[in-house]
Parts: sequence; structure tokens; C-alpha cells
Amino acid sequence: MGRTSDARERILAAATDLFSRRSYGSIGVAEICAQAGTPKGSFYHFFESKQALALEIIDLQWNSQRGRWQRILDGDGPLVHRLKDLFAFTVEMQTASLNDAGVVSGCLFGNLSLELSTGDDPMRQKLRAIFDEQVELIRRSIEAAQALGELTTIDAPGAAKSIVAQIEGTVLFAKLFNDPGQLDQLWANSLRLLQVADS
Amino acid sequence: MGRTSDARERILAAATDLFSRRSYGSIGVAEICAQAGTPKGSFYHFFESKQALALEIIDLQWNSQRGRWQRILDGDGPLVHRLKDLFAFTVEMQTASLNDAGVVSGCLFGNLSLELSTGDDPMRQKLRAIFDEQVELIRRSIEAAQALGELTTIDAPGAAKSIVAQIEGTVLFAKLFNDPGQLDQLWANSLRLLQVADS
Repeated sequence: MGRTSDARERILAAATDLFSRRSYGSIGVAEICAQAGTPKGSFYHFFESKQALALEIIDLQWNSQRGRWQRILDGDGPLVHRLKDLFAFTVEMQTASLNDAGVVSGCLFGNLSLELSTGDDPMRQKLRAIFDEQVELIRRSIEAAQALGELTTIDAPGAAKSIVAQIEGTVLFAKLFNDPGQLDQLWANSLRLLQVADS
Repeated sequence: MGRTSDARERILAAATDLFSRRSYGSIGVAEICAQAGTPKGSFYHFFESKQALALEIIDLQWNSQRGRWQRILDGDGPLVHRLKDLFAFTVEMQTASLNDAGVVSGCLFGNLSLELSTGDDPMRQKLRAIFDEQVELIRRSIEAAQALGELTTIDAPGAAKSIVAQIEGTVLFAKLFNDPGQLDQLWANSLRLLQVADS
């Protein structure tokens, strides 16, 4: 048993690790507690359920990832360069997962969307809100680039959504083929979705 | 109990229905047999395991879907019109799922890729082969359209892959938002990935 004082953090860390490597449905509270080195009783002291824990992990991951997306998209230089940096960040995350865990774990939000979205309503609401925010962050950047005359894209919300869909579909390939190199085409494909000549 | 003579078909039908509505990991052999109205013993008479059953269902679905893809893509008329028909078929499948089961079930191959691809090797091999075939079917159509001077797309394999990724990412949104209307932009976005003006 570890110290009680950090049991909550150890449960969060163990579950984050397990959820990145296996499906949500295949992981039980007992396994999370075993990996965290905490008794099952202390789990329910901190979390109402596995779902409550998962919702907190999704929040933590999106808060961290949103910060990174904002810093990249609000940076200087032409939008297309910032998008290139955003995709480099995606490659970096998947490469880190391959190096640390031996597998490309994909996108937690996409994984849970396809595993649970027909059944788990609080999760579905949260995942919808995250993807809406991702589209919104990119849409705002596209509109700022339009205002500067950088882009001639006509439909900013549609283009933003198509880029987020392209990220999710490409991350699916990276996970299935266990190969972050699948993500290399993301930038060129996004330029096409934005109707920009390659640069 | 139903008749033994069609027990195998009833197991396949029950599992296909369950796999389209819930995650693979959440469904056990007992539940499949209960829905099929067959004793558990007869399950193992026909299938070695849940995995063996799932592999057969994936084959059946892809054989049927591949036939439809081929008929559409090998049809007459400009490629862009055939792609429009391919996406109409995708919308039709997801709308049928919404009408029949009350949920947009998404793409079985994409769902299983994100749920299982870090862990289940026979499944991963099969899913990789299916996505490779999808990319190949579209690549051949693009190259045929290039040969006719219909397209100026330079990188046919890259464009084909980006279209399949766009389908998967967009189907993810359709499932998460339980709305086949999310697929409406697929055609316009694919024309951009092919570097074709909207038509």
C-alpha cells in the first residue's frame, strides 16, 4: 500500500496509463487500484465510480491539450505554419506513447467516442463539447487568417470541422498501424481542405 | 430455444446487431446466445471464441460493403459523381442504423480499430487489410480519372488515404453526435482533398 496522502493522484495516474493502452470497458476498478497500489475502499473515497474517474481524466487531458493548442494557434506567423506546429505536436504525443508504452495509443477522446458514444451519456456530452471546442479553436484561427487576407477559404466552420475530422481519421490509422508516420500527411491534407497551395 | 439448423445464422445475426450497438468488450458469449435463443454449448460448436465470431462478422460485412464500393466506383460517369454516390451510400447506412436501432452505430471497422488495435492482433491484421483495400479501391479510381484527364491530383495514393481518413473522422462525428447529417460535407471535403473545384 502506498501513502494515503497521494492515493488520489496515484489512482489518476494508473487509470490514465491504463486508458491510454486498453479500451475503457476492459479496465475495472480492481485493476486500477492494483496498479495504483491503493485499496479499493480508498477508490470510492475519492471517486463515485469508474465513469466519474474517467470524466475527470478527460477534463485533465483536454485542459492540458487545450492549453497547448491555444499557445500554438495564438502564436505568430502565418496560420499554415501554426497548423504545421499543431500537427507536429500531435506526432510528438503519439511518438511519446510509442516510446513509453510500446503502442500508438491514439486520441483518448476519439477512442472513447467510438467505444462509448452510443451508450454513455455524460461521457458523450463531454466528448461533444471537446470536439466542438477543437473545431472552434481552428475556426477562429481560420477567420483571423481570412481577415489578414492570408486565406481565401470560404467556409471557415466547415473547413475547421473537416480538419478535426482529418486529424481523428489519421490518428485512427496511426493507432491501427502502430505508426506515427501515418500522421505525416496531415499538414498537406489540411492545406487542401483550406484550399491553400502547398507551402 | 430455436431450431438447431439455423442456430449458426441466429448467433451471427445477434452478434452483428450487438456489435453495431455496443462496444466489443462489453458483449459476452452469454448475451449473444441469449439474444440468439441458442444454448451456450451450441455457440462453441460453431465458433471457437467470441474473437473467431467477430472475425467472421468483419469478413461478412466487408465482403458485402466491398461489393457495393466496387459497383459504385466501377460505374459510369466522372469520378467525382461516383464519389458522391459512395458517400450517399455511407449516409444511407448510418441513417438505416439510426432508424433501426435508434443510434448511429458508425463504422464497425473504425470502432474496432480504436477499441482493440493496441491489443488484439488477428483483429488488427484484418482491419489493416480492410483499410488498405479501401484506400486501394479509391486510388485505382483516382488513377483511372487521371488517365482520362479528369483530375490533376498529383499524389493518388496520398489522396486516396486522406479520403478514407476523412470518411472515418466524419463517421466518428456522426456517431458521437448521433446525426448522419454530419456526413453531408464529405463530398465537398473530398473534392478539396482531390484538388478539384466543387461541381
